Amino acid sequence: MSKQNNFRRYNPLIDEWVIVAVNRINRPWQGAKTEKSTTISTSSNTEQSILNPLAPGGTRSSGIANENYVSTYVFDNDFPSFTEFEECAGKDENDDLFKQHEVKGVCKVICYHPNSQLTLATMDVKEVRVVIDIWNQQYLELGPKYEWVQIFENRGAVVGCSNMHPHGQLWASNYLPTLPMKKHESQKKHFEKHGKVMLMDYLEQETLKKERIIMRNEHWTWLVPYWAFWPYETMLLPNRHVERFTDLGEVEKQSLSEILRSLLIKYDNVFECSFPYMMGWSGAPTGSFLTENCSFWQLHLSFFPPLLRSATVPKFLAGYEVFAEKQRDLSPEIAAKTLSEIDEEHYSKKLQ
Amino acid sequence: MSKQNNFRRYNPLIDEWVIVAVNRINRPWQGAKTEKSTTISTSSNTEQSILNPLAPGGTRSSGIANENYVSTYVFDNDFPSFTEFEECAGKDENDDLFKQHEVKGVCKVICYHPNSQLTLATMDVKEVRVVIDIWNQQYLELGPKYEWVQIFENRGAVVGCSNMHPHGQLWASNYLPTLPMKKHESQKKHFEKHGKVMLMDYLEQETLKKERIIMRNEHWTWLVPYWAFWPYETMLLPNRHVERFTDLGEVEKQSLSEILRSLLIKYDNVFECSFPYMMGWSGAPTGSFLTENCSFWQLHLSFFPPLLRSATVPKFLAGYEVFAEKQRDLSPEIAAKTLSEIDEEHYSKKLQ
Ligand SMILES: [Zn+2]
Ligand SMILES: [Zn+2]
Repeated sequence: MSKQNNFRRYNPLIDEWVIVAVNRINRPWQGAKTEKSTTISTSSNTEQSILNPLAPGGTRSSGIANENYVSTYVFDNDFPSFTEFEECAGKDENDDLFKQHEVKGVCKVICYHPNSQLTLATMDVKEVRVVIDIWNQQYLELGPKYEWVQIFENRGAVVGCSNMHPHGQLWASNYLPTLPMKKHESQKKHFEKHGKVMLMDYLEQETLKKERIIMRNEHWTWLVPYWAFWPYETMLLPNRHVERFTDLGEVEKQSLSEILRSLLIKYDNVFECSFPYMMGWSGAPTGSFLTENCSFWQLHLSFFPPLLRSATVPKFLAGYEVFAEKQRDLSPEIAAKTLSEIDEEHYSKKLQ
Repeated sequence: MSKQNNFRRYNPLIDEWVIVAVNRINRPWQGAKTEKSTTISTSSNTEQSILNPLAPGGTRSSGIANENYVSTYVFDNDFPSFTEFEECAGKDENDDLFKQHEVKGVCKVICYHPNSQLTLATMDVKEVRVVIDIWNQQYLELGPKYEWVQIFENRGAVVGCSNMHPHGQLWASNYLPTLPMKKHESQKKHFEKHGKVMLMDYLEQETLKKERIIMRNEHWTWLVPYWAFWPYETMLLPNRHVERFTDLGEVEKQSLSEILRSLLIKYDNVFECSFPYMMGWSGAPTGSFLTENCSFWQLHLSFFPPLLRSATVPKFLAGYEVFAEKQRDLSPEIAAKTLSEIDEEHYSKKLQ
C-alpha cells in the first residue's frame, strides 16, 4: 500500500462525490458470490482462531494477529480508505468540472464478540449493550477530531461481507460525505420551513397513521419509512429529540440494546436465515459542527436488507434504477405488516 | 397483476423518489446468483425457441409467444412498472413528508437479434446499426407522449439479468425521474454560469488532457469520466452538440454502430468473458419538454460495468457507500489505460 492519502472527486452531472481509494486496490479480497448466509459450524475456539481472521488470536490477511480479546475488540482496518499520511495520491483541483480533494481519516473494524458463531441477534441483551457502549466510546473519541464518524455493518456475503464473525466497521473522515450532507441540508430546510425537527415531525405523524410502525418501546420506535427503497428497509428512531448518539442517556442505551436485539431476531425470522443487511447510524455531524447549531438533526439507525423473496434472492440495483429512478416491488406497508406479525423468538431456538 | 397503475414516493431526507411497483411483486423471477456470464451452448433454432423465452417463437413466462422475428423485435414487458390503466394503486399525497404521485407509462423489451448466442459485441456492424434504428424509432414514437424515455440494457446475471439473449429495455414515463431531473438542473446551471454546454465543455477539456480518452472516431468519443464510480465506468459522447438521440444524422448513426461494437469488444476482452454491464442513454427530456429550451443538454451513453478483478468478482454497493459516499478502488486513469491498451479483436475469435 502506498503511503499516500486518497482523494474524492465531484460528479457535476448528479451532484455527488466519489472516493477514489487507490490505496485499496491491492487489498486481499475475501468476498463473495451471492450465497445463502450460513454460520460457521460448531468448532472449538482453537479451530476458530485458525480459521477466522476476526476471532481472538486470529491472523488477519495483513499478517497481524488479533489480541486474545474476551468481549469487543476494535482495530484499525488493514486496508483503509481513509489515512492520515503526509501526502496525497492526487492533487487538489477546484474547477467546476474537475474537482478533486484530498481525504483524511481513519477506518476501524469493531468485533462485537469473541464467538464467531454469534450475531447481534443471537447475543444476549447484556452483550449487545457492550457493543452500544463501544459505539459510544468511539464517537466520543473520534467526534472532536472528524467531521463525520460513520458506524455501520455489512452483514452477509450478499452485501459483500463473507466473514460471518459478528463485526461492524467505523469510517471517520475530515469532511462531511455526500449523503450526510444531503440529510444535513434537508433537515435544516425542514426546520426553517416548519419550525420542527423533520424526523420528529415524521415520527409524530407515523404514530398517528400506525400502518408502518413495527415495534416500539418507551424510548425507541422501529418503522418502515414511507419512502423506503430496500425490500425490508427500516429505520429505528429515538422517541425524543436526540441529535447525536453521544446524547443518549443510560436508560435509552439499555432500551436500545433490547429493541435492537428484538428487531434483528425478527429480521432473521423472515426467511429463517441470518438475515443479510447494511446497518448504519446517522446523527448530527461532529468536528467543526460540534460548535454549530445542529438542533434540526435527529439521530437514526437505518437498515437496508437486500433480500426480497427468499434467503438466496437479493434485490439488484440495476438498469432503470441507476439511470433514472429507484424502484421497489413490495409496498412499505406490506413489509411493515410482515415484520410486525413475525415471531419474536429466534427461529434457531424453535428448531432445537 | 392488478389493473392499477403504480406510484412513486418522495424521500425528503435525501431528495430522491422511489417507484413503488406493487404490480410487479408477482412476476416470475428468472435471475440470478452471481455467476460467470456464459453464452448458451450451440443449439439449433428449434431448441432455442423452446429454451429461450426471448428467442423467435419462444414462449414467455406470461404464456405469450414471440413472433418468429428475423431481425429486431419489440414487445411490451409482461410485468411492467409503468402502465396506462384508469386507476392507481395509491392515492396522491402532497405533504412535505408524505408525498406520493401516480406514475403512468410503458415498458418494453427490445430483442436485438434472433440468435440467442450473439451479443452487441459479436453481432456485425450492420446488425448493430439495425438496433440503433430501432432505438431511434422508439424515441420518435414515444417521445411526444412521454416526458422521459429511458433506453437501457442490463447484461449478465451479476446485474440481475440471467437471460443472455441479446436484448435491452425501454421504460417511458409521464414524468421526469430523479436522476434525469438532476442532470437537467446541473446542465442548465452550468450553461447559465459558463454559457457552454456542460458535457461539450467537459469533452473539450478531456480532449486536451488526453488521459481518460479511450477511443474516438470522427463523430464519437469514448472516455472514462473524471468522476466515474463503477470500476470500468465509461461514457460515449457525440463530438458535436446533440440534444437528443433523434437529432443524430445518418452518418453519425453509422459511426455509432461502429464505435459501439468496438468498445463492447474491448469490454469483453478485459476478463475474456461476455462483460456484464448496465448501459443507458440520456438526452434532453421529451413530452412537454419538446417545446422548451433544452439546448444545455448533451446526449450521452453511459456504461456501468460492475466487475473489478475477474469475470466472477463484482463490485458491491454496500456499507459506507449506501450511508455516506460512493467509493472506487481502481483509478479512472488506470481504467482508461487498461481499456485503451486492450485488443480490438474479440477474444473468442482468437481462441478459435
Ligand atoms: Zn466485514
Ligand atoms: Zn433482461
